[in-house]
Amino acid sequence: MFPINKNMLDEAMASSGITDMTKATIRQICSLAALVEDKASDKFIHLEIGNPGLPAEIVGVEAECQALRSGVANEYPDIAGIPALKENGSRFVKAFLDVDINPEGLIPTVGSMQGSCTIMMLLKERDPKKDKMLFINPGFPAQRSQAKLVGLKEVSFDIYEYRGKKLEAKLEEMMAADDVTGILYSNPNNPAWTNLTEEELEIIGRVSKKHDVVVLEDLAYLGMDFRKDFSRPGEPPFVPTVAKYTDEYVLFLSASKIFSYAGQRIALVGISNALFNRQFEGLKDFFNIPGFGRAYVFGVLYAASSGTSHSAQYALAAMMKGAVEGTVNFVESCREYGRRGERVMKIFNDNGFNVVYAIDGDQPISNGFFFTAGYGDMTSGELQTELMRYGVSSISLPSTGSEQNGIRVCVSMISDDKDFDTLEERLRAFHKDHQ
Amino acid sequence: MFPINKNMLDEAMASSGITDMTKATIRQICSLAALVEDKASDKFIHLEIGNPGLPAEIVGVEAECQALRSGVANEYPDIAGIPALKENGSRFVKAFLDVDINPEGLIPTVGSMQGSCTIMMLLKERDPKKDKMLFINPGFPAQRSQAKLVGLKEVSFDIYEYRGKKLEAKLEEMMAADDVTGILYSNPNNPAWTNLTEEELEIIGRVSKKHDVVVLEDLAYLGMDFRKDFSRPGEPPFVPTVAKYTDEYVLFLSASKIFSYAGQRIALVGISNALFNRQFEGLKDFFNIPGFGRAYVFGVLYAASSGTSHSAQYALAAMMKGAVEGTVNFVESCREYGRRGERVMKIFNDNGFNVVYAIDGDQPISNGFFFTAGYGDMTSGELQTELMRYGVSSISLPSTGSEQNGIRVCVSMISDDKDFDTLEERLRAFHKDHQ
Repeated sequence: MFPINKNMLDEAMASSGITDMTKATIRQICSLAALVEDKASDKFIHLEIGNPGLPAEIVGVEAECQALRSGVANEYPDIAGIPALKENGSRFVKAFLDVDINPEGLIPTVGSMQGSCTIMMLLKERDPKKDKMLFINPGFPAQRSQAKLVGLKEVSFDIYEYRGKKLEAKLEEMMAADDVTGILYSNPNNPAWTNLTEEELEIIGRVSKKHDVVVLEDLAYLGMDFRKDFSRPGEPPFVPTVAKYTDEYVLFLSASKIFSYAGQRIALVGISNALFNRQFEGLKDFFNIPGFGRAYVFGVLYAASSGTSHSAQYALAAMMKGAVEGTVNFVESCREYGRRGERVMKIFNDNGFNVVYAIDGDQPISNGFFFTAGYGDMTSGELQTELMRYGVSSISLPSTGSEQNGIRVCVSMISDDKDFDTLEERLRAFHKDHQ
Repeated sequence: MFPINKNMLDEAMASSGITDMTKATIRQICSLAALVEDKASDKFIHLEIGNPGLPAEIVGVEAECQALRSGVANEYPDIAGIPALKENGSRFVKAFLDVDINPEGLIPTVGSMQGSCTIMMLLKERDPKKDKMLFINPGFPAQRSQAKLVGLKEVSFDIYEYRGKKLEAKLEEMMAADDVTGILYSNPNNPAWTNLTEEELEIIGRVSKKHDVVVLEDLAYLGMDFRKDFSRPGEPPFVPTVAKYTDEYVLFLSASKIFSYAGQRIALVGISNALFNRQFEGLKDFFNIPGFGRAYVFGVLYAASSGTSHSAQYALAAMMKGAVEGTVNFVESCREYGRRGERVMKIFNDNGFNVVYAIDGDQPISNGFFFTAGYGDMTSGELQTELMRYGVSSISLPSTGSEQNGIRVCVSMISDDKDFDTLEERLRAFHKDHQ
């Protein structure tokens, strides 16, 4: 029964090896929650983990089984990707982003995790003087770990105080030494579900180009800013992207959330035409391949895993084809997250919480997969820990690089009425004890 | 029509960006061959690439389709692997190698390429003083590229002059500075199809342990030393392995060749129990996780791709289960490579070639997937280039780290009588013009 007492939680933290809750990874919070669930003989409301929570797009499953039965399992896939995937990827970015990328620049990766990790490996070698990755926080903690793993230094700032026009001076400051090789952010944002405005994207594109910084745009939640309807292929409104404002970018297009296909670890990187063909002395020295695109495929991806599951490539090709041709409406499927998000946010607001990252430009943020929540003047650690006592698990904002106080709420696992009711009950009890 | 003239080949090399044939990668040779095929309006005999060339193990295909239909595509797979794969992996190493590894140490990777790349990433961090990988050459060139990519220095030697007892002094010399973190080799050997003797494996295990070097044993062609019959699970003879001679090793078990499953990019690493549980200051500092096994899963694999295709894990679990229970005889299926190898080697021998790496201990090498071939006193570059003119593509021994003159012959793509006849015809023409 929740709330559990402080001692019980402290013991569970100690046996999970967690000393500072705000530094715990998602996986560690999951382990901790499992331990407490045992002790409390009751289940947590899990707001920490972002499993898709919707069934996989059936068109993908069918295409994948068909490819397997047709005999693709014994053949090494082309590391640059099967033609159908490259072509439909190119059509997909045209249809939903109104952006032109040649099929050669659309290359499959083992999820966007491999995409960002391997692109950073490549960026590390392009110019020895550019040894830093710049992260716009808050962000996905794993991507900062990737930079460290591949040997890049990390610089970052919390965008909270630098929205709109203020972003330009901040980016200029961060890029002034011309030692930044790439800038990475996710849009819609994980964890805050903010969306950069056109003004902000223009600033990022222009300032990055000026300082020769490659822009890495993670579109894991593409189309899920539900304030607009991005569901019609080839018709405005198109999903906002930095690709309109610089010609040297890499897009990460993961099937995990867009098509609820996380299990098969399949994504595309989309390397802009100019960047694909640009030659770098550093890449020539290191890989003996000067061109960015070819060095990525033959220098990095070949070494990292020699390509991506053959059948999963057929799945993503079919799902993207369906999306482009209007037979697969992924935006409509994902709108469920918007409905859940709205309901969960109301429960938080009704019980004394506030949304931390609340505004894009002059508009309230969209409902969706995540939002950020604070409570009075509680610190992130206090709030996250107290909510654990009340049977609600989450990750803290500091773990995402934010300097604000609060937690990340992920609504993907809150699916039925019982979950909503339990959440409401527990937050009400929490609020009663803390107001 | 072959032979083509020297100018035509030079032009094709120039437009493929190849300046030194002996430094070209397999993929570059493939591209070059495709270009020449266009110009010559005739097909190459492809001896450079190691595609399985046999149909995928049907048990795997069925298990994978079943998993997909049951709905695994939307769920992130456990990064440490699904329980069925971990358990059957453990049974598999017991049944065919007579080695005990707990299921927790058997962890899926996106092919053994990801296995060796990510294990090297981990080895790099375990002790800052140990910053070198030792390769026993000849070997798979991609693995040396991986060491470079992850930031480890490479040291190596050609085993040609150091077989048998002579290996001990050479290893002692290479490891004397105690700056080697891992030693890697493949057995059976790619490219030479030699097999280390029990005496040699004992030396590798003992000397490595003495110098705190982790042994990485790539078993891509497990069971394919056809001089013995390794097809009976749980019965001797067992596949020779260094695991008998050290307790700190990592085995790479790829489905690509064993089960002809290269397309799905699925393999297991097998981390010995002692190594899995060993704690390292370096890993604690870097990942905040001291244990080798846990740092591998949560520190490295999570960042590299967040796990391996969910359905492919079911495929490999089913294939390994079938092998252990005697319903899938992968050794018998792969024996086809031995038959092809014997026939191709005879064609080479009949036309003036010699096998370069010819002996294990006191026995001629097995027939199998590869062998190495030299011709008179031609250098590797001359031989490889001249054979390209005659419509036979291969990679050179220097590209595999060998100091001998010759090429690597891979027989996997030579499947029907017509291929054998064409190969014979071309080598006869080559021999006639060069003897």
